[in-house]
Amino acid sequence: MSLWSAAVRYAECDQQGVAFHGHYLTWADEAATALMAAKGMPYVTLRARGLDTSVVASTLSWSSPARWGDVVDVDGVVERLGRTSFTFALTLRVGERACCEVRTTYVLVDDEGRPAPLPDDLRQAWSPVGGGPAPS
Amino acid sequence: MSLWSAAVRYAECDQQGVAFHGHYLTWADEAATALMAAKGMPYVTLRARGLDTSVVASTLSWSSPARWGDVVDVDGVVERLGRTSFTFALTLRVGERACCEVRTTYVLVDDEGRPAPLPDDLRQAWSPVGGGPAPS
Amino acid sequence: MSLWSAAVRYAECDQQGVAFHGHYLTWADEAATALMAAKGMPYVTLRARGLDTSVVASTLSWSSPARWGDVVDVDGVVERLGRTSFTFALTLRVGERACCEVRTTYVLVDDEGRPAPLPDDLRQAWSPVGGGPAPS
Amino acid sequence: MSLWSAAVRYAECDQQGVAFHGHYLTWADEAATALMAAKGMPYVTLRARGLDTSVVASTLSWSSPARWGDVVDVDGVVERLGRTSFTFALTLRVGERACCEVRTTYVLVDDEGRPAPLPDDLRQAWSPVGGGPAPS
Repeated sequence: MSLWSAAVRYAECDQQGVAFHGHYLTWADEAATALMAAKGMPYVTLRARGLDTSVVASTLSWSSPARWGDVVDVDGVVERLGRTSFTFALTLRVGERACCEVRTTYVLVDDEGRPAPLPDDLRQAWSPVGGGPAPS
Repeated sequence: MSLWSAAVRYAECDQQGVAFHGHYLTWADEAATALMAAKGMPYVTLRARGLDTSVVASTLSWSSPARWGDVVDVDGVVERLGRTSFTFALTLRVGERACCEVRTTYVLVDDEGRPAPLPDDLRQAWSPVGGGPAPS
Repeated sequence: MSLWSAAVRYAECDQQGVAFHGHYLTWADEAATALMAAKGMPYVTLRARGLDTSVVASTLSWSSPARWGDVVDVDGVVERLGRTSFTFALTLRVGERACCEVRTTYVLVDDEGRPAPLPDDLRQAWSPVGGGPAPS
Repeated sequence: MSLWSAAVRYAECDQQGVAFHGHYLTWADEAATALMAAKGMPYVTLRARGLDTSVVASTLSWSSPARWGDVVDVDGVVERLGRTSFTFALTLRVGERACCEVRTTYVLVDDEGRPAPLPDDLRQAWSPVGGGPAPS
């Protein structure tokens, strides 16, 4: 089972007959939230502590299109934990066919929007597989 | 000059080669905000008073499609002022060609989301042309 | 089981903390496609015959908001079969709580975009429950 | 005057009170089309020749948010011309405040979706300022 899955909507496909490329960020966003929860520190828990996440960078690389009705599955991992930021790497595919790789870096922010150090329990919960010291 | 105007975006057009019908509500929403301001009671003023608007009904009728690159112009009027609700009638067109009529009814709500009577100054500012007693 | 179901996406919710009202047309559109198939005449079959559907009118009525993470379920019926047009009535809800009623009228069109009579097998397949003569 | 400009829409802003990050790709897409035309080889000309563009990679870097009503201006340059691909670098800003850098690489494709060499007149028209030999 993947982190997140959805059928491509008619409204998401453009005149080229494929999903418009901007929608991959919407799908990746939902999968990122699912990854936070799957790794034991849900977004709503962060919000309840007065924390929020702010996207600072995103890289997308497409290898094949998703079309109307295709079911997009998203898997992903925590790739990096910094002092106040973290990076998720997500893979979007249709069946076994890879469609897009999305790598997104977030900064954790407090209620005033200032960068906040990643809490220890978040760091433990989201620790990347393979571990090693967290880069700053 | 119209209330609101924008070129149809590539991402807004679907495989039929026309703007997906749901986007007309996005365009109408921006034009509704422009109508509030043009009639002397901007949305931000309502917000500053602890009021907000909640859409309760919308009716759309299409007569011709808008396509990528077409410039959509929206005009509109306040059609009805009720006790706590109001209705805007908006016309979307490309040049002289009518595309869509949108009629949307909003309820004015307070900070708890409860219906709030339309303030007297809003009622005066938005009074429909031709006037007459406001229906409940 | 409903015709169509999806969790409300973060990108679909606006500053009011609820799903932006325009997205209900996107959801209803997917459910309408599901209704066509569930009633035995899928959209892709129409397309394979050189036919397409064109939305001519839509009426939405909201009774409660959908929020981020809420699972929206859509049910619906064929409400009317005309000579070249048809109307679907869809109900969107979160659990048992009704959110929105959407009634959409489509015209069946041929490859040149001209209205086309509903084929007999479509008429039989989509015949509204309770039947009676089809209005023009 | 910028390549493309638009006021941020209410429907584009999420519960964080800022434009959802996915919409930057929609805005950049319109600006990319404007850049093609401004540089003397419009997208519609490519289409008329049986060519199309396919997005293969995109990198976004945000420095500040755009909010509802902010007017986003986009400027940009052709950064690279390859054999069958090209890269645009776009800067999105609100007034003088930088919001986002978007770098997108496209492959030119023929009617069967196969990579097509950039035509000589496109190469001349879009030649990056400063010139130099085109990298493969």
